[in-house]
Amino acid sequence: MFTMIGLGLGDAQDITLKGLAAVKDADIVFLEAYTSFLINSNAAQLSEIYGKEVTVADREMVESGDILKDVAEKKVVLLVVGDVFGATTHSDLIVRCHEMKVPCHCIHNASIINAVGCCGLQLYRFGQVLSLCFWTDTWRPDSWYERLKTNRAAGLHTLLLLDIKVKEISDENLARGRKIYEPARFMTIKQALEQVLEVERSKKLGAVAEDGSTFAVGLARIGSTTQQVVAGTMAQLMDVDFGEPLHSLIIAGNVDVCESDHVNLFRLS
Amino acid sequence: MFTMIGLGLGDAQDITLKGLAAVKDADIVFLEAYTSFLINSNAAQLSEIYGKEVTVADREMVESGDILKDVAEKKVVLLVVGDVFGATTHSDLIVRCHEMKVPCHCIHNASIINAVGCCGLQLYRFGQVLSLCFWTDTWRPDSWYERLKTNRAAGLHTLLLLDIKVKEISDENLARGRKIYEPARFMTIKQALEQVLEVERSKKLGAVAEDGSTFAVGLARIGSTTQQVVAGTMAQLMDVDFGEPLHSLIIAGNVDVCESDHVNLFRLS
Repeated sequence: MFTMIGLGLGDAQDITLKGLAAVKDADIVFLEAYTSFLINSNAAQLSEIYGKEVTVADREMVESGDILKDVAEKKVVLLVVGDVFGATTHSDLIVRCHEMKVPCHCIHNASIINAVGCCGLQLYRFGQVLSLCFWTDTWRPDSWYERLKTNRAAGLHTLLLLDIKVKEISDENLARGRKIYEPARFMTIKQALEQVLEVERSKKLGAVAEDGSTFAVGLARIGSTTQQVVAGTMAQLMDVDFGEPLHSLIIAGNVDVCESDHVNLFRLS
Repeated sequence: MFTMIGLGLGDAQDITLKGLAAVKDADIVFLEAYTSFLINSNAAQLSEIYGKEVTVADREMVESGDILKDVAEKKVVLLVVGDVFGATTHSDLIVRCHEMKVPCHCIHNASIINAVGCCGLQLYRFGQVLSLCFWTDTWRPDSWYERLKTNRAAGLHTLLLLDIKVKEISDENLARGRKIYEPARFMTIKQALEQVLEVERSKKLGAVAEDGSTFAVGLARIGSTTQQVVAGTMAQLMDVDFGEPLHSLIIAGNVDVCESDHVNLFRLS
């Protein structure tokens, strides 16, 4: 049996009672640690709190299907930060289980996709969620720009999920077959704002105001005790220190009266 | 102090450890029971499991701010089905607390908005979430149609949240000042499909295929043990018995390869 369990966003205490019961009942517990990470707990802490050995599963172990090798005989659990279906890999695991005729369950939890509602902008007024990647010298994807423009033209808010690089191998080390991992990197709100404005200034199609006057909300460590939400113009947010990861950014669309009463609680003067 | 706690989607066991700790620590616990409802638990069951008296708060008590009357001196908790920020009312409570200078916290949980990922369609390929209301003889809102059309034209999936009528008073009883509540009503997937197709057949702008051949996914009781997910054409889904509430409906946009492997597990032949 295979069970994927969402851990929520903050720390080890954000698991549900149902999730914890499944962990306690499991034979093998993995923690998926490359599509996101738990802000205030590592595998050792989870292990202690849940009273169960927790093994970190990196991209290789998950994508190769290695973590599924005992699912036919044993109860295998995969802990996922946030909710279960943030990444296509997790869908792939379900399809594999189905092919093996192994029962597969999931236990939901909060995801950044719904938790952003805490900033006061209403979830049903968001358009498509977009992702920003770290650019390299040779790879500067900007296909999100058109979709940001579409959301903004429709008056909708846009949640931008910011890149996480964990256990990446540099091109040079990859070419030489060396398994040397680069330090983890997490895109900051400032880096995201810079990227959005740079693309706007080059394309000039008005997805956001070139001068940085478009209203936006920066969110850091949502769901944790050190959560930080700051609203203001894109230019204003550039100067805010949002501290430790994870960061997310909302480019606002039209803000209605109900929303503005709430989001203004976080607004820079 | 005021704390809003998401209960998640299934039953009393879907609360988080953090949420349960806050309930146990509270002086007064309310359950918000009109924007959604917990599929497999009522207030009495929650009360028993959480070891704390739980008072049902209806629309009147929440919207009037009645539930906030003791927040200055006491620890007041509002339990909300799903996550905290599904309804504008909850934003309003935060604004009121801020005006009263009372600290206000929230503890997140799963929402239908992220849990729909369980059907295999990827969350970042959804457009704006839409809501369908029960029509009356004189009130047949269809402003969602344009937005459905926009999502579909962009190849995006659309989650339709279906109407819930709890403790409503009929126009006649309202006119006569009689507080007699109508039986609770929950829109079914079939009713939603009929409404979408009726509007399409009248507007004829191609948001969906008039003949019901557009691909869709029906979801019932997501997050509960009796969860049901069925994918097929809109016409096919009309004939599926989805059973008890709550129901939701996804009108699919373009389905990519990763998605189709997963969603096909739920597909009618």
